[in-house]
Amino acid sequence: MDEFDLINTYFGRAAVGSDVLLGIGDDCAVVCPPEGRQLVMSIDTMVDGVHFPKGTAAERIGVRVMCAALSDLAAMGARAHWFTLALTLPDPDPEWVAAFADGLFSIANRYECSLIGGDTTRGPLCITVQVHGSVEPGKALRRAGARPDDIIYVTGNLGDGAAALAVIEKKLTVSTGVFSYLLKRFYAPTPRILEGEMLVGTASAAIDVSDGLYADLGKICEASGVGAMVDVGRLPISEHWRKYTSEDRAQEWALTGGDDYQLCFTVPREHVGKLESWIRDGRIVATAIGKITHKHELLLVKNGKPFELERRGYNHFG
Amino acid sequence: MDEFDLINTYFGRAAVGSDVLLGIGDDCAVVCPPEGRQLVMSIDTMVDGVHFPKGTAAERIGVRVMCAALSDLAAMGARAHWFTLALTLPDPDPEWVAAFADGLFSIANRYECSLIGGDTTRGPLCITVQVHGSVEPGKALRRAGARPDDIIYVTGNLGDGAAALAVIEKKLTVSTGVFSYLLKRFYAPTPRILEGEMLVGTASAAIDVSDGLYADLGKICEASGVGAMVDVGRLPISEHWRKYTSEDRAQEWALTGGDDYQLCFTVPREHVGKLESWIRDGRIVATAIGKITHKHELLLVKNGKPFELERRGYNHFG
Repeated sequence: MDEFDLINTYFGRAAVGSDVLLGIGDDCAVVCPPEGRQLVMSIDTMVDGVHFPKGTAAERIGVRVMCAALSDLAAMGARAHWFTLALTLPDPDPEWVAAFADGLFSIANRYECSLIGGDTTRGPLCITVQVHGSVEPGKALRRAGARPDDIIYVTGNLGDGAAALAVIEKKLTVSTGVFSYLLKRFYAPTPRILEGEMLVGTASAAIDVSDGLYADLGKICEASGVGAMVDVGRLPISEHWRKYTSEDRAQEWALTGGDDYQLCFTVPREHVGKLESWIRDGRIVATAIGKITHKHELLLVKNGKPFELERRGYNHFG
Repeated sequence: MDEFDLINTYFGRAAVGSDVLLGIGDDCAVVCPPEGRQLVMSIDTMVDGVHFPKGTAAERIGVRVMCAALSDLAAMGARAHWFTLALTLPDPDPEWVAAFADGLFSIANRYECSLIGGDTTRGPLCITVQVHGSVEPGKALRRAGARPDDIIYVTGNLGDGAAALAVIEKKLTVSTGVFSYLLKRFYAPTPRILEGEMLVGTASAAIDVSDGLYADLGKICEASGVGAMVDVGRLPISEHWRKYTSEDRAQEWALTGGDDYQLCFTVPREHVGKLESWIRDGRIVATAIGKITHKHELLLVKNGKPFELERRGYNHFG
């Protein structure tokens, strides 16, 4: 099976919308940009043994790479449209590629994101996905919009990614049921696309938590020229694994573990009532964890005292 | 130097047009699509030791990866706008990254293509570039438009890529001057963006020659449901290296060598006069090498006899 057969067989079945004038199979894809909207795009790479353990099942890799890519669109409040895939493989094992494509499309199709192009090359396993979405003009959720006194929220739970990694690396032992919950959270983190779109016009800033809350909230603060105070006791941590470790360790993971792919966002006081009513009505799962401050520092507080971190979040070259 | 410093220091200086509302530094880039035009995009990966020899100077890699990516836009007749970069590096050597960025921007700036986002990860050296351009609605040059009796042209010379590789791999010995010409052609192949835009409305189909003319013209034929006859004696081959090898070998390289990044395009009879006048006036460097036929085969003819190939073009998994 050569490069061209590989693409045709496993990626040719991509679901494609009417906005795609030319998909896979030419030198470029041609698309019609959605009228009256701005384009939003992001490129993400995952490397074997760095972003997922060596030997990870191909379907899981496909799911995870797509979830992580869509998470960046979610952080901008964007609607997903198209993606391209650069797949570098040591050898074109058809079974591996079929399973990878299954995983990839299971997520892409759910968010109506069409594969429109790609490149297949031989080399060490490495996957790059570029996603494209759109927003109403001027409405993208940026990192730079947080203002002092805004309330800081996060969607879902934090620390699942770090707990999952601890289990995978055999540093934490949990029940079979919890193991299965954590594996799902690690390999198939829900991209918060729906939440992101809902927050347009309500949140003042947003980011997806991929390097750990402490690092990522720090990026909102830096971009906005503000600081933040986080009440560590309010961090949302899943009851599933909470009891298998100490409270301090669980909170440390919630603050510094990567791979959660939740949204961290800030809400100005005038919109807090609306957001809290959405939470009460179950329209969004989110928790207030602190507030934005004037002072250029990220303060962690637990029971009224400063909370010290052992490490400060994932950095690829740190 | 960590991931964030790396990006800010070497890629933060990207020249950015007024259509870029948000460039590097957020979860996504935000751009304004050019009004009344369709978007054209392509993703390309180059792997250390596969697409360039191990140990290649960083600046050369930067130049080459950008030239190759822009070549795909050229093949569609598109104007370049933006690109994103996924850079996987074994270690973040600042000198390497600075030289790589110099090479990359030297080409990107020439074609007014703005870096708007990226991802830097640790792993085996691997570079993915996604380029975005635009065309007038319905005007993209596709592979599928060739019709019987159309004349087949190529820009510039063919076989330079293969000759360069032969020299780099010490399978061919040439003079210092010719060596320097070939290295330039290999590492800095001119993306035929200007020629591509000029051919919109004149060419019926186009492709960039990256896997060898035989393979790439074959893709035009397959997509268009036609065949082709190529007069091997008319293939444009550079006088620089022609004399260092046999005529048959030179023609073989022109047909099957990859990495030339010339355009191969077809022109309907009614536009041939116009194209020939452009060639005479020096507005485009191109050579007629054959014609499109009804029969679904790619026929190579030399002095009235069939020409047999030893190999048939680059295939990553062939």
